[in-house]
Amino acid sequence: MVYIELIGMLAVLQFFFFSFMTGLARGKSGVKAPAVTGDESFERIYRVQVNTLEMLAAFLPSLFIAGKHWSPMVVSILGLMYLIGRFIYWRAYIANPDKRRFGFMLSMLPTLALIIMAILGAIFSIWSVH
Amino acid sequence: MVYIELIGMLAVLQFFFFSFMTGLARGKSGVKAPAVTGDESFERIYRVQVNTLEMLAAFLPSLFIAGKHWSPMVVSILGLMYLIGRFIYWRAYIANPDKRRFGFMLSMLPTLALIIMAILGAIFSIWSVH
Amino acid sequence: MVYIELIGMLAVLQFFFFSFMTGLARGKSGVKAPAVTGDESFERIYRVQVNTLEMLAAFLPSLFIAGKHWSPMVVSILGLMYLIGRFIYWRAYIANPDKRRFGFMLSMLPTLALIIMAILGAIFSIWSVH
Repeated sequence: MVYIELIGMLAVLQFFFFSFMTGLARGKSGVKAPAVTGDESFERIYRVQVNTLEMLAAFLPSLFIAGKHWSPMVVSILGLMYLIGRFIYWRAYIANPDKRRFGFMLSMLPTLALIIMAILGAIFSIWSVH
Repeated sequence: MVYIELIGMLAVLQFFFFSFMTGLARGKSGVKAPAVTGDESFERIYRVQVNTLEMLAAFLPSLFIAGKHWSPMVVSILGLMYLIGRFIYWRAYIANPDKRRFGFMLSMLPTLALIIMAILGAIFSIWSVH
Repeated sequence: MVYIELIGMLAVLQFFFFSFMTGLARGKSGVKAPAVTGDESFERIYRVQVNTLEMLAAFLPSLFIAGKHWSPMVVSILGLMYLIGRFIYWRAYIANPDKRRFGFMLSMLPTLALIIMAILGAIFSIWSVH
């Protein structure tokens, strides 16, 4: 379970890093709060941050609940795929938003797998009690 | 507790589904990343996704912590109301944003109830130790 | 652990309050859904809400995992700093977005401390098993 905690926390750290990069890009671009548009390179990193927040909101609860019901090894590998996928997504989106697809899929598919595993795990647990 | 896990994970799946619909709408509308405005039907589903993310961030921790301190039956019923409310919110917002109020309330009020139950549950626990 | 639950839930309640204030500001400003721009005072409170959501997504898991591995007293104090920092951030951003820095730092730095403590706590746990 502690490996899963570590992977979950690395995903949080990664998100925090993207947020930090967004803050830096705001300073550089001169986009003044509360505005979030007006500079293409600011908008790209900001979208990476927002998209990672959306993904993280699904990834974290699924990771922890799947980790309670399934092999920690399999769950950890899916978690690592997510981390690598997000990293590739970030690099690709900054370079060219049209190239973001592969990194997106590499983080989205493990998240979807973890959601399904968490739901099935909960259903099997209810089942086995009755 | 496992019923509460299942409801929490269904809320995650619902959010993931709205995210998927946003991705589809982006493709159809021709709104190119990183932009998030320019097409009314894309903007509607995107707002459903963002609003659900905001709600989910309050709903999930409240659901799990309220579930530790109160009757799992009551907590599960509030969780189901949230799921149904979000579903109605989505259908209404897509059809006409002015009609989103009922579905919004049906997911907001159970979330508020769970927040209060979780806070009271934690306070009563601290109390009973002293 | 129950003090940490309470602080986590107060952070959720604070976020919920900012969301409520955003809803009020939308009504007053006349910015019609799905739009999120067009009125400066609506945009300010909306940015407070979004920024708090981003922070909360990192704060909550870090708070709970750091709380498992470190002194609940130290973790609780960092959590209280976050709550106060977010409150100051809100008041400052509404008055003048250029003044948001101090409140931002007062919630960001405890969050970063909790992330690092959670990661180190997980690593030390893995270590001590081997």
